[in-house]
Amino acid sequence: MRDVSILGVGSTRFGRHGETAIDDLAADAARDALADAGVEPERIGALYLGNFVGGMLTGQEALAGLVGEAAGLAGNVPCTKVEGACASGGIAFGHACLAVAAGLTDAALAVGVEKMTHASNPRITESLNSAMDNRADAPSGLTFPGLFGMAYRLYAQRYGATRDQVSAVVVKNKANGLSNPLAQMGARLSVADVRDSRPIADPLRLYDCCPASDGAAAVVVVARDAARGRGGAVDVRATVQTSGSARIAGHPDLCTFDATVAAAGRAFEEAGIAAEDLDFVELHDCFSIAEIIDSEDLGVVPRGEGAAWAGEGRTALGGDMPINPSGGLLAKGHPVGATGLSQLYEAVHQLRGDHPNQVRDARFGLTHNLGGTGVACTVSILGRPDA
Amino acid sequence: MRDVSILGVGSTRFGRHGETAIDDLAADAARDALADAGVEPERIGALYLGNFVGGMLTGQEALAGLVGEAAGLAGNVPCTKVEGACASGGIAFGHACLAVAAGLTDAALAVGVEKMTHASNPRITESLNSAMDNRADAPSGLTFPGLFGMAYRLYAQRYGATRDQVSAVVVKNKANGLSNPLAQMGARLSVADVRDSRPIADPLRLYDCCPASDGAAAVVVVARDAARGRGGAVDVRATVQTSGSARIAGHPDLCTFDATVAAAGRAFEEAGIAAEDLDFVELHDCFSIAEIIDSEDLGVVPRGEGAAWAGEGRTALGGDMPINPSGGLLAKGHPVGATGLSQLYEAVHQLRGDHPNQVRDARFGLTHNLGGTGVACTVSILGRPDA
Repeated sequence: MRDVSILGVGSTRFGRHGETAIDDLAADAARDALADAGVEPERIGALYLGNFVGGMLTGQEALAGLVGEAAGLAGNVPCTKVEGACASGGIAFGHACLAVAAGLTDAALAVGVEKMTHASNPRITESLNSAMDNRADAPSGLTFPGLFGMAYRLYAQRYGATRDQVSAVVVKNKANGLSNPLAQMGARLSVADVRDSRPIADPLRLYDCCPASDGAAAVVVVARDAARGRGGAVDVRATVQTSGSARIAGHPDLCTFDATVAAAGRAFEEAGIAAEDLDFVELHDCFSIAEIIDSEDLGVVPRGEGAAWAGEGRTALGGDMPINPSGGLLAKGHPVGATGLSQLYEAVHQLRGDHPNQVRDARFGLTHNLGGTGVACTVSILGRPDA
Repeated sequence: MRDVSILGVGSTRFGRHGETAIDDLAADAARDALADAGVEPERIGALYLGNFVGGMLTGQEALAGLVGEAAGLAGNVPCTKVEGACASGGIAFGHACLAVAAGLTDAALAVGVEKMTHASNPRITESLNSAMDNRADAPSGLTFPGLFGMAYRLYAQRYGATRDQVSAVVVKNKANGLSNPLAQMGARLSVADVRDSRPIADPLRLYDCCPASDGAAAVVVVARDAARGRGGAVDVRATVQTSGSARIAGHPDLCTFDATVAAAGRAFEEAGIAAEDLDFVELHDCFSIAEIIDSEDLGVVPRGEGAAWAGEGRTALGGDMPINPSGGLLAKGHPVGATGLSQLYEAVHQLRGDHPNQVRDARFGLTHNLGGTGVACTVSILGRPDA
């Protein structure tokens, strides 16, 4: 299979898009990415659309075909929706890369979208819970904040993490989000603000949790040869998709997600680099504690030291390993199907050197998108063409 | 990319499976296919799950990971749900073929599933309507029976098709279904029975419409080299996916679906055979009139002669071009996500020579899976290894 590159990226602002239909939102991001790539829509030979709860929250399926038509793709181009809970966007990207790598087409489009803010909170929780095993875990009343609350408690007990260390993740990501124009809710917070916000699922507080969001993001993938010398092109060094158990019982240790560990291991091998070669990471911080666990699972922070690193500012911009310089899910928001592609949007701008929260001389970046209880995961490693 | 073959197929009975959860239903078919292939689940390197309205009707998403786990796949194998309305099953198959052809794995599993019969009729209609553009067409009150009723009227007016000719499609498929043990509702009907059944969306009558169904089907795909000499292996000569408009306004002529015409053209080219080389076709007869239109779009019956061919028995078992010897969607049922894989199940048994409604000395067969208003389509051509 041939090497592939990202030639263009696009994203809507994340937040509330009350008046915009889900397919229009996705098409907006798609057009942005095509314009950024300088690729005519007629040249796109495959579209992959990442979406999670569009059916349940908007009543619209067959969304891939709708978005392909709205974005101006040629008739008869295969348009496929892929779903793997919160990892749907990363999965869409992986398949766009596969379509080009395998030679099915010279240019593919990955789009991710979700529309959630119009729905009631109970309805949003119900739809997100569809990523759990409906029979095994849902009857207990467990929700995702509940699950990550348990993980927090276990992690704190095992590694002696303090409330302030975990809060430091939130303080950092919310501050990063303040200077990201696409972010839904950047903020200047103190660790006391986080600790004193209202309880959601003890010990998780409001600010420990990413918000419900509307938004879309998109990426244009082309063959490496066609991208050579094109300004703004970024190499895809690896993109790996894995699965894990959808049942809590399948995760005897809530301080780690097998799907992340496996995906990261394979991605570093494919990319031919090690964790210490990375200049930054955009990872799946659906909750503050998730960032800590993910950072250890990815191997960018030593096991058991994620909270300490956060507390010491070692994952901040300018630290040993900047994590979520974009603001992450906590500040940018989490329009589920869009998140994986939004991470790639941020990473590409870092590697182009024009990110609002630029990591100095960034050469390699990693994106990590995790679904449900770790039921699906993608890890991608991007590199500057001269890296 | 390398050639691929189908090594095993599995299917549940189609009909009502009230007590069985959607993931168990899918896992049953997956295990059947693995046993038929003689492939251990640990050898499967990718799973694609075709499902359409699982979120809306069962509240269960992340279904691909759940099914992979239940079917005994190794941890961390990528499991992906794909959705393209009623073509979801065919899309899952195409991606399993791609994963093997591209060398990502030596064995992939495609599973399709739907669970519908537990839901109320209005809820089923609402969920199926999610394949239409919610804004452009849904506000008119249009449903899929309504759409195909309009197509029927236009077709009859343009080509002079009679009620009895269209009914002949139903009589044939229901009769074929009687001897298919997996079929939901085979029946011995007369053209008068069809004509006199109650109106659904004029001129479509009850028997012109496929039923709502529960069911699952699965296919194991391996590299051609690994399948050589293995009993029961069938060559995948082509599998093509296309898209079309999700809006009625995008289909100025309802007597044809562009997505089918394009997919068939490419599939014959890839397979290196012509329509007249086919020994049978399993096509998407969601309504009687759909079989007639599809048969012309696929090029297996001359344009405008589909109804006449049906009326003259030329598409019956033993006719010029046997269409839906399995009973098709009309008799087998249409558990949406499963349908495309069920068609492949039937085609493989035809090419093995052990189908209950065997087409004599079948060497080549075509399967055709159409979604929504033609928003997604897949066409696959299978051949006997000695063909």
